Amino acid sequence: MANNMKHAIIAGAILFATAAPAHAQRIPAPDSAARAAQERLIDGALKDSAAWNRLAWLADTFGNRPTGSARLERAIDWIVEQMKKDGLDNVHTEPVMVSHWERGGESAVLLSPRLDTLHMLGLGKSVGTPKGGITAPVLVVKDFADLRAHAADAKGKIVLFDFPFNTTKKAFEAYGEAVAYRGVGADSAMQFGALAVLVRSVTPMSLRTPHTGAMRYGDSTHRIPAAAVSVEDAQMLHRMQDRGQKIAVHLTMGARFLPMTTSRNVVAEVRGSERPDEVIVLGGHIDSWDVGSGAMDDAGGSVAAWEAVRLIKQLGLKPRRTVRVVLWTNEESGLAGGIAYAAAHQAQIKDFVLAMESDNGVFKPSGIFVAGADSIIAMMKPVIAPLARIGVTSVAPGESEADESPLNRLGVPALSIDTDGSKYFWYHHTQADTPDKLDPREMAMCVAVMAVVGYGAAW
Amino acid sequence: MANNMKHAIIAGAILFATAAPAHAQRIPAPDSAARAAQERLIDGALKDSAAWNRLAWLADTFGNRPTGSARLERAIDWIVEQMKKDGLDNVHTEPVMVSHWERGGESAVLLSPRLDTLHMLGLGKSVGTPKGGITAPVLVVKDFADLRAHAADAKGKIVLFDFPFNTTKKAFEAYGEAVAYRGVGADSAMQFGALAVLVRSVTPMSLRTPHTGAMRYGDSTHRIPAAAVSVEDAQMLHRMQDRGQKIAVHLTMGARFLPMTTSRNVVAEVRGSERPDEVIVLGGHIDSWDVGSGAMDDAGGSVAAWEAVRLIKQLGLKPRRTVRVVLWTNEESGLAGGIAYAAAHQAQIKDFVLAMESDNGVFKPSGIFVAGADSIIAMMKPVIAPLARIGVTSVAPGESEADESPLNRLGVPALSIDTDGSKYFWYHHTQADTPDKLDPREMAMCVAVMAVVGYGAAW
Repeated sequence: MANNMKHAIIAGAILFATAAPAHAQRIPAPDSAARAAQERLIDGALKDSAAWNRLAWLADTFGNRPTGSARLERAIDWIVEQMKKDGLDNVHTEPVMVSHWERGGESAVLLSPRLDTLHMLGLGKSVGTPKGGITAPVLVVKDFADLRAHAADAKGKIVLFDFPFNTTKKAFEAYGEAVAYRGVGADSAMQFGALAVLVRSVTPMSLRTPHTGAMRYGDSTHRIPAAAVSVEDAQMLHRMQDRGQKIAVHLTMGARFLPMTTSRNVVAEVRGSERPDEVIVLGGHIDSWDVGSGAMDDAGGSVAAWEAVRLIKQLGLKPRRTVRVVLWTNEESGLAGGIAYAAAHQAQIKDFVLAMESDNGVFKPSGIFVAGADSIIAMMKPVIAPLARIGVTSVAPGESEADESPLNRLGVPALSIDTDGSKYFWYHHTQADTPDKLDPREMAMCVAVMAVVGYGAAW
Repeated sequence: MANNMKHAIIAGAILFATAAPAHAQRIPAPDSAARAAQERLIDGALKDSAAWNRLAWLADTFGNRPTGSARLERAIDWIVEQMKKDGLDNVHTEPVMVSHWERGGESAVLLSPRLDTLHMLGLGKSVGTPKGGITAPVLVVKDFADLRAHAADAKGKIVLFDFPFNTTKKAFEAYGEAVAYRGVGADSAMQFGALAVLVRSVTPMSLRTPHTGAMRYGDSTHRIPAAAVSVEDAQMLHRMQDRGQKIAVHLTMGARFLPMTTSRNVVAEVRGSERPDEVIVLGGHIDSWDVGSGAMDDAGGSVAAWEAVRLIKQLGLKPRRTVRVVLWTNEESGLAGGIAYAAAHQAQIKDFVLAMESDNGVFKPSGIFVAGADSIIAMMKPVIAPLARIGVTSVAPGESEADESPLNRLGVPALSIDTDGSKYFWYHHTQADTPDKLDPREMAMCVAVMAVVGYGAAW
């Protein structure tokens, strides 16, 4: 998952909403044959660790997959090849122009009150520092209000936002609140003459672990670099300031934008036997940040969607509608894949029955979220009924995931999986986002959810 | 805490056991006045965050404190100065010759099947690699038996021990089992012609977090370098081997020994009003590994012992026996401080009533452990009775902590605190060993335990 900026991004895109697609209104409750097929899909998903093994292969073999990297494109090539071996229909890619941000070398060294290495990661899409870096005193503030209260002290400083992750709130709510400093901390401190910004990593749990993620600049041409430091480092600097110690840091970031380049959305399907033009989309995003191996965010969701479609094929099921897997590119640094996909298929939008994306980690699922009309929620209840035996029962209104949100804006109901998010932000956008964080059984349950929903809306 | 090698080390030392000190047999149950004093000590420890604040100052200001470093000696200077300001008696240091191992630059780069940076820390006291490093194929084994089974494959390889931390066992038991690979993995692989050793970090929880710690060589002059890699990296290499992929790593370690140097044990006391020669020792170790800020291991224990003695002084209590704080040096890389202290005071050993060390993290305490005769256990029960109101009730037989173990070998009962060790190995010997891992209230409870025991054995 990239950030909570998706609505701002979508608002600026060329898409425009149309009337809700007619087909979404026609998802019948599964009959006994459809239900039997759904039961087979659940059994098929849970019978082994195939999904997790594929995820681990992908993550181990290609590593992380930022847009612009050869690693991402090699991973896409491999997926296309495997999808063909899986016997899926209409395997292809669709080109997407994407930004290409590169981290470069970077470091943050505490010079005063003592010499130490701060554990940092530059924020995605930040500018770099001048060659030779920036050496400046540090002003620690808690939040935007605290910055305004100390506005006169910010000039010529590196401003650190030490905003805590509120562990008394739900994880995604606490994230939404704290991530604002990652998003616009740089511009807000720049206004008061700051030279650079550091933000406390957005997480409830840290082993000196910096968390990257996207930041954004406003219209000003004056842009200052921004980096995350670990919770431990942010707290230490805050304590030092509270003690009246003078803090100085040397920040070096080689971050830069290279020319825009082409990436690809990956598409494959089990073609509908009766109404092939009517499509159920299951997806995830195949790009990641440039740390760890992007296993949780979002190789896991991508492979879960892919495996759901593969299972339908492998079991010889013949859905009437087309069940399509779409692995979007560039979710983390622009959402260009999701936007391009909706734009390219806007003429056929009435044929998109629903979309479902997994991008909250393939942790233990307990239900689904629906961004769509109440009538869709009602229709989904019988569709997911077979999942009750693995504890997946709830159907609740929710927001769409990022990549499917452009489709949702065009009226396509957008579903997601309600998973146990308690550890999601432990690993999010870090070097620790590796396959071991996902449990094979829990991932298989997510595959079952996507397969049951996909087939259940398509039979 | 350094390792589970302490008995091996002690066995080789010059100390020899004598009859149990006579004074240990005379710890009377506290009378009502002594009990009132103990209650005041508990209240004093719990009334604020003074201990945690002092710990954080120490850790933040001096950082980690490996023996041989100027940081350790500066921290010792500061402690001596503060102890004098606290008004403690007989504040002084006692010189100790210590080894001086230096990490130097280091890295482990995965070359095949893909390029990646492994998250590693060289093991303490390892030799370095030749200049230019070692490039070699990797053989992954689970344990010593697995190595023997693949002995013919080890020649010319870097051997990785991927031995898991058994989370079904108690943390310290699982540690004891897994740490063997850190301790002697290098020598065991060297026997079969390995060029270097990597070990999976000894921890139940990782965010790509390498854990250092001491290793040791046997008598052979042929020594190969040894480093820890994160759990995630070890598991990934193991998966790659299981898939039949060829693994190659480039390991560079600049580790080396510098000439032995002098460090110091720090000693201060509240002198006994009636029998000043009879001594209760409270302590921790002031050195740490060269990562994080050594806050948990063992600035926390050191400051807890110091604060316990300071509280006795501050409250104007007049124990009959001397209550002494000893902060040992070089626990992590040789135990020279603990050994030297016992050796230097061997002539007065009969006057050491008991020792108590905190080196398991100043987490929530629930009781005390006693390495000593059953009669001592029985005598300690009334001594700690006032701690029942903070949930500290158990008195159980246990092993001595490392630094007090040389005193224990000479017959001095050696006590420790039974704390909640569930997260100890999350942070142990890592960059994440920082003050935030310790809770001010829990640390204050540990101060209360040490103060109540120290005063209770001294009134």
